[in-house]
Amino acid sequence: MPEFFNVLPPDDALQVLLGRLGPAQHMGVETIATLDALRRVTAETVYAQDQLPPFPRSAMDGYSLRAADTFGASDGLPAYFNVVGEVPMGAPPAVSVDVGEAATAHTGGMLAEGADAVVMVEYTHRVDDTTIEVSRPVAPGENVVHPGEDLEPGDLILPAGHLLRPQDLGGLMAMGFTEVQVCRRPRVGILAMGDELVSPDHPPGEGQIRDVNTYTIAALVQDAGGTAVPLGIAKDDYPAILAEARRGLELSDVLVFSAGSSVSIRDFTVDVISALGESGVLLHGLALRPGKPTIVGLVAHSGPSPKPVFGLPGNPVSAMIVFDLLVRPTIHHLLGCPGPPPHSTATAELSQDVPSVPGREDHVPVRLDGSGELRTAIPVFGKSNLIFTLIRADGLVRVPLDRSGLYAGEEVEVKLF
Amino acid sequence: MPEFFNVLPPDDALQVLLGRLGPAQHMGVETIATLDALRRVTAETVYAQDQLPPFPRSAMDGYSLRAADTFGASDGLPAYFNVVGEVPMGAPPAVSVDVGEAATAHTGGMLAEGADAVVMVEYTHRVDDTTIEVSRPVAPGENVVHPGEDLEPGDLILPAGHLLRPQDLGGLMAMGFTEVQVCRRPRVGILAMGDELVSPDHPPGEGQIRDVNTYTIAALVQDAGGTAVPLGIAKDDYPAILAEARRGLELSDVLVFSAGSSVSIRDFTVDVISALGESGVLLHGLALRPGKPTIVGLVAHSGPSPKPVFGLPGNPVSAMIVFDLLVRPTIHHLLGCPGPPPHSTATAELSQDVPSVPGREDHVPVRLDGSGELRTAIPVFGKSNLIFTLIRADGLVRVPLDRSGLYAGEEVEVKLF
Repeated sequence: MPEFFNVLPPDDALQVLLGRLGPAQHMGVETIATLDALRRVTAETVYAQDQLPPFPRSAMDGYSLRAADTFGASDGLPAYFNVVGEVPMGAPPAVSVDVGEAATAHTGGMLAEGADAVVMVEYTHRVDDTTIEVSRPVAPGENVVHPGEDLEPGDLILPAGHLLRPQDLGGLMAMGFTEVQVCRRPRVGILAMGDELVSPDHPPGEGQIRDVNTYTIAALVQDAGGTAVPLGIAKDDYPAILAEARRGLELSDVLVFSAGSSVSIRDFTVDVISALGESGVLLHGLALRPGKPTIVGLVAHSGPSPKPVFGLPGNPVSAMIVFDLLVRPTIHHLLGCPGPPPHSTATAELSQDVPSVPGREDHVPVRLDGSGELRTAIPVFGKSNLIFTLIRADGLVRVPLDRSGLYAGEEVEVKLF
Repeated sequence: MPEFFNVLPPDDALQVLLGRLGPAQHMGVETIATLDALRRVTAETVYAQDQLPPFPRSAMDGYSLRAADTFGASDGLPAYFNVVGEVPMGAPPAVSVDVGEAATAHTGGMLAEGADAVVMVEYTHRVDDTTIEVSRPVAPGENVVHPGEDLEPGDLILPAGHLLRPQDLGGLMAMGFTEVQVCRRPRVGILAMGDELVSPDHPPGEGQIRDVNTYTIAALVQDAGGTAVPLGIAKDDYPAILAEARRGLELSDVLVFSAGSSVSIRDFTVDVISALGESGVLLHGLALRPGKPTIVGLVAHSGPSPKPVFGLPGNPVSAMIVFDLLVRPTIHHLLGCPGPPPHSTATAELSQDVPSVPGREDHVPVRLDGSGELRTAIPVFGKSNLIFTLIRADGLVRVPLDRSGLYAGEEVEVKLF
């Protein structure tokens, strides 16, 4: 049963959709080279198989020796050691130390057989070719990275659903995992609609305008971790749009209609989404400005789970704001990540009053000015059908649902683009 | 003249290097498809050639008409209009309106000839097939996007040195710029050094350890907008390292030595950088923990400008922190961006005291806990030679140069990974 005209604020609308998708739904698993896995999401929990490090490593340059032999050593009364050899880097120790003996140690190298500590070179003094003075005692295990200190077999390396950062790739490589199972990127089809639209490489005729939203949305999809599937421009004609939408659903996991903004096209979009399959339209309209005429749907299709479908407003500003509030978190969810997508934010002082209406969430483009501790957020007003409003802005300020506006001088959080 | 052992804090060290590189130095220009230009940097200022929109567009669904004919209209005394036609989307108006006439208008479509305003459909009532009542007056220009309201010919679209965001790609497409001149990505060579290192796809023998830093650094380079050029593992041998470094400089714009951490390897690195060309080593050592044994150099080579060279500490934690403080901003600078690279941050409350020493800047890995307004930052202590310290952390907290530590309960800014 479609819940038409159930006007929710964007966060609630998102929860309706994600609740229907269920937790941890993703697009399947693929095994890829760890090298290529930056910003991908782990599809399974990864555990250590081996100890790391696998041997006692010196944490310092100096000498490995038996800690007990240094006890009581001081500047005034140093302990003397016979240097019996050196443990070269990357090789097992061919040398062992007994009472009163030491072996040259390099940071990252193995300890000599029989040694249980390393004394830093700074606390030693070379007496002759084979003798050193040690002027400070070391405790057993001091300046040593112990076997398994980084990881023991069975330790968690990374949980499933983890967005891979540079250091995570290093951690996988440390265990020899040169491949990793990740969730497949969701493919997001983008269907532009409108008789007035032409491709950007065509000069527009009278009454025509270049399609802009396909490219902005494709870049936003890429940023969100999805794969954009541009589907071209459909004419304002129900059978044509339905045919293109069906083709788009075959090619994608999520379908975005970049709607013409006229009522007739919005009506087409609702009808098309309903015709694509169950459940059809979940929500039509949001308690949001700009972005009110948004459509959210979910349609059954070939495959185990229904596919999210969005009808974005045609105005570039509205389209981008709704993408950020609904489509981006949906892609992030389908990418296999629990929790909301990360966002860069800045705190700033609002330069002027921003009026709103209680019961509606407003998102206002702002430009940041100044460079001190607290920058100034200057609203970039402009009709939401202007393309350059967002190009002149650095981010968005949210006026919450229960506020009738924000005041000049108020400290606000700016969600940066 | 090399300035050995001139121990500066990291920001000052960066300024020494960038000052030598000069402003707006980048790696040359290439022309690429706008579609592929996300997160690239404009190499030239882009101006509008045409008006946008090129024609008066209706901002609403309704009727275009002469505003003067609506003056005085109200619910009680509506104005009547004869609907003389419709302006279809994407087509020039085949209809013109005279006194008392209106033409159906769609959002984004042209106004009828002779019309100067649009009345929203909500304020009209259809009387019969050809007649409407209008119950509110509109001002001339109301609900119209005027020609050039978005852009006039000659208006700035984007300055040079601008990091391209999704909406910027849309803005370029709106003007028909399907290609854009961007700065070439800096190539960053990564040379791992150490007899103990083996490639991750090889099982390490006794005393050996898998190379991890090459992969973490390569991913960090990618994140920073550069192209990583992994150069493999060089043995602890001066002629071998010098030969590999020379080869690396041919292939890259920036060279990063992922140093073994022992003193001997650091000495090799200093000698190699000096031998590569003028100026050689600029700085050896930073007032930073971890990351003190960092080397920063600049070497003349084939090409118009000297190439930055970094000797990063071998410890994974130190290497990543120094990369973030020095290498990332250098890549960002060479990518053509003025100003520092953007960072995601979170404000959090420190869970425990963090001791430091005045005169040294400390960077402490922290894990974020909680989900409310103010999360808790829990220091992840651990030797900086452990790989998993940073995998278990969400970001870094800086203890400033002039502080002897931070206190439990203090509000801190966490630089997120």
